[in-house]
Amino acid sequence: MDVLMGVGKAGLKSGGKPDLLVVVLPQSCNASFLFTQNHFKSASVLYSEKVFKGTVRALVINSGNANCAVGREGLLHAELMAKKVSECLDIEEEEVLVFSTGVIGKPLPIGDVLSAIEEACKVLEPLDLKRASDVISTTDRFPKYDFVKKGKLEAFGFAKGAGMIHPHMATMLAFVFTNAELSREVLEKLHREINERTFNSISVDACMSTNDSFGLISLGTHKEELESVREALEEVSLSLAKSIVQDGEGATRVIKVHVKNASISLKARLIAQAVATSNLVKTAVFGKDPNWGRIVAAVGSTAFPVDQFKLKVYIGNHLVYDGKVHPKAVELAKRYMEESQEIEIVVDLMEGKEGWTYYSSDLGYDYIRINAEYTT
Amino acid sequence: MDVLMGVGKAGLKSGGKPDLLVVVLPQSCNASFLFTQNHFKSASVLYSEKVFKGTVRALVINSGNANCAVGREGLLHAELMAKKVSECLDIEEEEVLVFSTGVIGKPLPIGDVLSAIEEACKVLEPLDLKRASDVISTTDRFPKYDFVKKGKLEAFGFAKGAGMIHPHMATMLAFVFTNAELSREVLEKLHREINERTFNSISVDACMSTNDSFGLISLGTHKEELESVREALEEVSLSLAKSIVQDGEGATRVIKVHVKNASISLKARLIAQAVATSNLVKTAVFGKDPNWGRIVAAVGSTAFPVDQFKLKVYIGNHLVYDGKVHPKAVELAKRYMEESQEIEIVVDLMEGKEGWTYYSSDLGYDYIRINAEYTT
Repeated sequence: MDVLMGVGKAGLKSGGKPDLLVVVLPQSCNASFLFTQNHFKSASVLYSEKVFKGTVRALVINSGNANCAVGREGLLHAELMAKKVSECLDIEEEEVLVFSTGVIGKPLPIGDVLSAIEEACKVLEPLDLKRASDVISTTDRFPKYDFVKKGKLEAFGFAKGAGMIHPHMATMLAFVFTNAELSREVLEKLHREINERTFNSISVDACMSTNDSFGLISLGTHKEELESVREALEEVSLSLAKSIVQDGEGATRVIKVHVKNASISLKARLIAQAVATSNLVKTAVFGKDPNWGRIVAAVGSTAFPVDQFKLKVYIGNHLVYDGKVHPKAVELAKRYMEESQEIEIVVDLMEGKEGWTYYSSDLGYDYIRINAEYTT
Repeated sequence: MDVLMGVGKAGLKSGGKPDLLVVVLPQSCNASFLFTQNHFKSASVLYSEKVFKGTVRALVINSGNANCAVGREGLLHAELMAKKVSECLDIEEEEVLVFSTGVIGKPLPIGDVLSAIEEACKVLEPLDLKRASDVISTTDRFPKYDFVKKGKLEAFGFAKGAGMIHPHMATMLAFVFTNAELSREVLEKLHREINERTFNSISVDACMSTNDSFGLISLGTHKEELESVREALEEVSLSLAKSIVQDGEGATRVIKVHVKNASISLKARLIAQAVATSNLVKTAVFGKDPNWGRIVAAVGSTAFPVDQFKLKVYIGNHLVYDGKVHPKAVELAKRYMEESQEIEIVVDLMEGKEGWTYYSSDLGYDYIRINAEYTT
């Protein structure tokens, strides 16, 4: 059941830090991969999408260079990376997937990358989640990983990301594993469901990256009830997703928006997203301002009608609006915002039973500093 | 043909500035009104939507209070405002429309507002576009108005707005008039078309207001070819729309995104919007950074596929990307961005004949200061 890893240096990151990771699975494993919906995809994503047929044996990931917008040679580079891993480890080329993250528009120094792959494949050691996250990180402030064990069931993963797109750095990457045996069909279905509630329910700057990838891999050595597997995988995935928001560019606080009692879940989701991604709500949270007027304006901004005379808005536990404002609750909400690191906004639509939770980060001066003062 | 106006003070604005405007038309005029799509509408918008039947005789507009999220009494207040104008000027109540802009969630001091309406109706003078814009402004830095005369055809208008939503201040309002005679059907069609290319193609913070309203009024004293009327009205409307972007919260530059040679115009429009509203593009413009990677990531982020190996991106006149980056052009684009007040980004999709232009403002520290340091 041991997952192995090897680390190399291709000189893509400043300071000569390790920037190349090879992850090797004990055998060909059922897996599911979800890639960015951006039509301006990284060549590494285009390559992996093309070759992936439902099973995987190894992952090769470089950080510091997105292998994106570099013309057709990017596709060749991705292929050469897979081929090199295949040769070094004597495994099928089609079972090696390639991922990249970093600067857009700069050709990979492919010679250095291939040498780093050789180096990485020479010394394989057990997968160290923290170190794996460190190697694939770009401007992340902390590594992102989690491990859940429930009886004999294991779920674990690592990720990187500090913005949907960083200043010329692109992407979040996340890889989650379980020892549970899952058929490819079940795996794919589970993967999509979990992705919607985790990585597709977070936002730092509402910008879609060219390189986003999320892989779910079944090592298949343990039989377990599907419901338990789902729970464990969702727990790990949500933990990784939330850590990306927490590490969002310039973020000082996590915003958790929960919309409840909607007629259908899509409505709950779109409203939660509208509130969580509103620049005006995000700046208000940064300013510790219980500005419920901006929240209701965002609630009303989707295609779904809402009843403004009936719906309720809470900041923390404080009911600030229910058709009318409650000035005392607004005062208390202000104190709550000054004291809390995670700001919860609850919108009760009072019309049904469906709900959705969406996470984002606040928007402050450091987001501008990071994104405006970087120059090409 | 004279449009008249009266001004009053209801004490809604700090400093006791005039905050109530009554506009009186010489007779019942064909008109078309478009209101915010937000489901959390101001009571004034709800009232005007309900009573408007295609003709209008007077407008009453208060600034400093949005009459929004104040419960059902907001509807009664809007009705009382219309009734008061109707009594003072002896005109049909149903031909008086009501508009409000300002703080959300605070009940109107209706007694003071009705007194201000009486005051305004006592002394009517010819419409002064600059002064009209001043009276309805909230935190605008400059008045917004324009006048076009082509032979005997006249088109003119005034507006307010400095953000889709201001810190607890909501809205853009715009009123455009022409002396041209137009049937209600033609007027409505023209209005929707012009609105799409002007007020619906601008963004400051991508946030939809609760009070947005755009009125188009035909005074009907002059016969003119439709095409000339369209041109004049679009010229005035675009000028007002651009001045709102220019006055956007914390804005230092206008961003003009033109997507050309798309297969269909919806595609051009959604891509132009994605680029113009991307926080990453907006911060790059603020930082004078020709960050084409962020532009292409936004280009790829809509539902419409694009060919990343074929499309071209220009910053100003500089071709920075056409499947590959052009580093020298990026250098020149940097100088262009340092020297220009309006930054033009052109995306050539190389696939058809349709185009769209979208305007936005950059995103800098002052946007955060204005929106985070305001406290409830």
